[in-house]
Amino acid sequence: MVEQVRDYLEQHQERFVGELVEFLKIPSVSADSTLKAETRRGAEFVQQQMEAAGLESRLIETAGHPIVYGAWQKAAGKPTVLVYGHYDVQPPDPLDQWQTPPFEPDIRDGHIYARGATDDKGQMYTHIKSVEAWMKTRGELPVNVVFVIEGEEEVGSDNLDRFLAENKDLVACDIAVISDTSQYAPGIPAITYGLRGILACEVIVNGPRQDLHSGVFGGAVTNPANGLARMVAALHDDQGRVQIPGFYDNVIELTQEERDQFAALPFDEAKFMSDLGVKAVSGEADFTTLERRWARPTCDVNGMISGYTGEGPKTIVPAQARVKITCRLVPDQNPKALTKALEQFLLEQLPAGLTMQFIDYHGCKGLVFDFNSPYMAAARTAIEQAFGTAPVMIREGGSIPVVETFQSLVGVETLLLGWGQNTDNLHSPNERFSLESFRQGTLASALLWQELANIQV
Amino acid sequence: MVEQVRDYLEQHQERFVGELVEFLKIPSVSADSTLKAETRRGAEFVQQQMEAAGLESRLIETAGHPIVYGAWQKAAGKPTVLVYGHYDVQPPDPLDQWQTPPFEPDIRDGHIYARGATDDKGQMYTHIKSVEAWMKTRGELPVNVVFVIEGEEEVGSDNLDRFLAENKDLVACDIAVISDTSQYAPGIPAITYGLRGILACEVIVNGPRQDLHSGVFGGAVTNPANGLARMVAALHDDQGRVQIPGFYDNVIELTQEERDQFAALPFDEAKFMSDLGVKAVSGEADFTTLERRWARPTCDVNGMISGYTGEGPKTIVPAQARVKITCRLVPDQNPKALTKALEQFLLEQLPAGLTMQFIDYHGCKGLVFDFNSPYMAAARTAIEQAFGTAPVMIREGGSIPVVETFQSLVGVETLLLGWGQNTDNLHSPNERFSLESFRQGTLASALLWQELANIQV
Repeated sequence: MVEQVRDYLEQHQERFVGELVEFLKIPSVSADSTLKAETRRGAEFVQQQMEAAGLESRLIETAGHPIVYGAWQKAAGKPTVLVYGHYDVQPPDPLDQWQTPPFEPDIRDGHIYARGATDDKGQMYTHIKSVEAWMKTRGELPVNVVFVIEGEEEVGSDNLDRFLAENKDLVACDIAVISDTSQYAPGIPAITYGLRGILACEVIVNGPRQDLHSGVFGGAVTNPANGLARMVAALHDDQGRVQIPGFYDNVIELTQEERDQFAALPFDEAKFMSDLGVKAVSGEADFTTLERRWARPTCDVNGMISGYTGEGPKTIVPAQARVKITCRLVPDQNPKALTKALEQFLLEQLPAGLTMQFIDYHGCKGLVFDFNSPYMAAARTAIEQAFGTAPVMIREGGSIPVVETFQSLVGVETLLLGWGQNTDNLHSPNERFSLESFRQGTLASALLWQELANIQV
Repeated sequence: MVEQVRDYLEQHQERFVGELVEFLKIPSVSADSTLKAETRRGAEFVQQQMEAAGLESRLIETAGHPIVYGAWQKAAGKPTVLVYGHYDVQPPDPLDQWQTPPFEPDIRDGHIYARGATDDKGQMYTHIKSVEAWMKTRGELPVNVVFVIEGEEEVGSDNLDRFLAENKDLVACDIAVISDTSQYAPGIPAITYGLRGILACEVIVNGPRQDLHSGVFGGAVTNPANGLARMVAALHDDQGRVQIPGFYDNVIELTQEERDQFAALPFDEAKFMSDLGVKAVSGEADFTTLERRWARPTCDVNGMISGYTGEGPKTIVPAQARVKITCRLVPDQNPKALTKALEQFLLEQLPAGLTMQFIDYHGCKGLVFDFNSPYMAAARTAIEQAFGTAPVMIREGGSIPVVETFQSLVGVETLLLGWGQNTDNLHSPNERFSLESFRQGTLASALLWQELANIQV
């Protein structure tokens, strides 16, 4: 049946790698306004490849970098799959830490090294090549596909959100697919079925109108730094539980099945600690490290500043203290409600003599998908056949806001099928992508179209 | 009896102000190495004035700026008084906030405006002029005097301490006098009979070896900023009491007499708060604001930093958090022992997964002198006669390390006789000194020599 497709992928793999090299040579750094034209070249490359694969495609202009839209929708009665990815990349700095230049792709040790290799050019490209294989060998796809490949993922996706909101008909689908995450470990492919959400804020505590002499005034006025420390300390109890009222009310607890799945994953805590350079792990009592990272909400200080921070001592009572805080959230915690609750809680802790200003930055919900859904089953089968081993079901501690957008705006769940590795240096020097993962991912994608075609919609 | 002295001071007051203007023109900024020669000119000016007053004087070279030493010791059987002061001044920045240039003294509103006007050129100069008045009119002083006027008070007095330690014979005395503090308020002269001491440190708390993604790792590793906040919060209980074990063990409590004296001082708490821009005062329970500032120990954060402190959010778990802490101390708290106790206490609060580094900066003891001693009585009488009103007995929240040095090294107490005002902008732009205070201070000094002569030694 798909032997032809499989053979096509095998025969053309070398050319695919060559194309990826060309793609990776384009410095499509969305954050760098001097590279606006180069970033557009990235979009044009993607569009040409979509056309070559047999998709109807076009560039959709935005206030920023264009979105590349492609579609093939002739599989009547079959599911429609939305493939999301991005052609923009992180800035390559610090340049002096790259072994080979970030935009001169180098193949060594079975990897292709370049900025964007795994995040997300290499991973995204697998889906275009799998479409090509189907179209060139069978003249059709077993499902309908819609590609939305944006150029602003690394700078906040503002224009994507606007595009999705204004073009619901163009992106109507039954399921979304994103390959922009990682496998669990080398040789252990994974499907990510949950993401944490986030709320972010900054708290500014003001005391005296200027820094005061700590001898003349110390002890008689509330010190904003000491005060802020007390407020931050109050956020957790001794068991690592967050003390914001109602914080855990809507938390969907891990099922025993999930805990068993996590516990069955190979995880070397000693290596985890030594990689991070810490002598102990810690966190909410009665949860494992993986549970804490993937499925429990947090409240972390991201930054803090007050008074004199130069060399040596300075005898002042600072006028102000500031802290940046993010909470990672899990379903069904509500970012907006908890941001309010956090502000209220901190206000209640505010010592007399201080005033408080609260800046609400942004938030998004945590998500968890049913890992027994027919879509998940299809993905599992495709991956198992392509990688030769069944994927593990994992969650991810970070947030991918577009996944929430797909759910809230388009009304669909997302299959997070990561072909990369955590060790691929994404956002860091010497970013890379395994050529074997590239091959396996492309095959998994091709198989996925077939598996998804079996689902009744 | 001292009418001649009094008349002399009256007749020559105008000249004294002219000399002070010349003194203040010299930019003797000890911290500014480009002004090394000018700073030396300040010392030379002082020495010439000592000679003119009838003291035997000389410059004593140090590794830094010279010390001006002067003496007259022919009052056999009478007390020897050590007068300490300094000819160096704070840097004048920010220059654009001065109404007239800092080294072009301007007389307006009954004040002389210039850097060093009150701190300490103007105040110190009163003692040289009072010596002159005695010597020119009586040919002698009623007591023996030793002047030690240094040029490094604003940069830590390192070379003074060495000089004192190595020249105990030169500075042997019965009592020290310093005019480098302030009156309690305009029209309310004061004798400062107590100073707080200090201990200063920096605490560095380390977690992971680099900043981590707060999504991927948050909740599973100890956050150094959250951890540090808990440690700092633990320093006080809800009553504002410092929780370092043994912290209050050696505190000499205020006597009822002292509390009554403080309570009798005019103090407008509403104005105090509005001057500082705070809505409430706070501190250790069961003490007044003056008691908290002058006679109770503290534990203040002077500065704090961790993670990302730029604009907007950044989703990291910081690798490190740092805090600078000073404790103001009162007699008989021991800075060395309490620095150890603070380190130990913080170490006990240190959350698992973090390491701590502790930097001990420096310390000095708090001091309190018997305000009923014959020396104090002499100073009180002199000030009452010169200012027309009896001085109030106050303490000071800051530290003057040289006073502790005089006690520990020379074995004497110090009369802290401040002629300035808290509103004279010391260390700030538009520093000034009241000409009337200059006149009264010089007279008080002249009277002090006579009063001290009555003390049996």
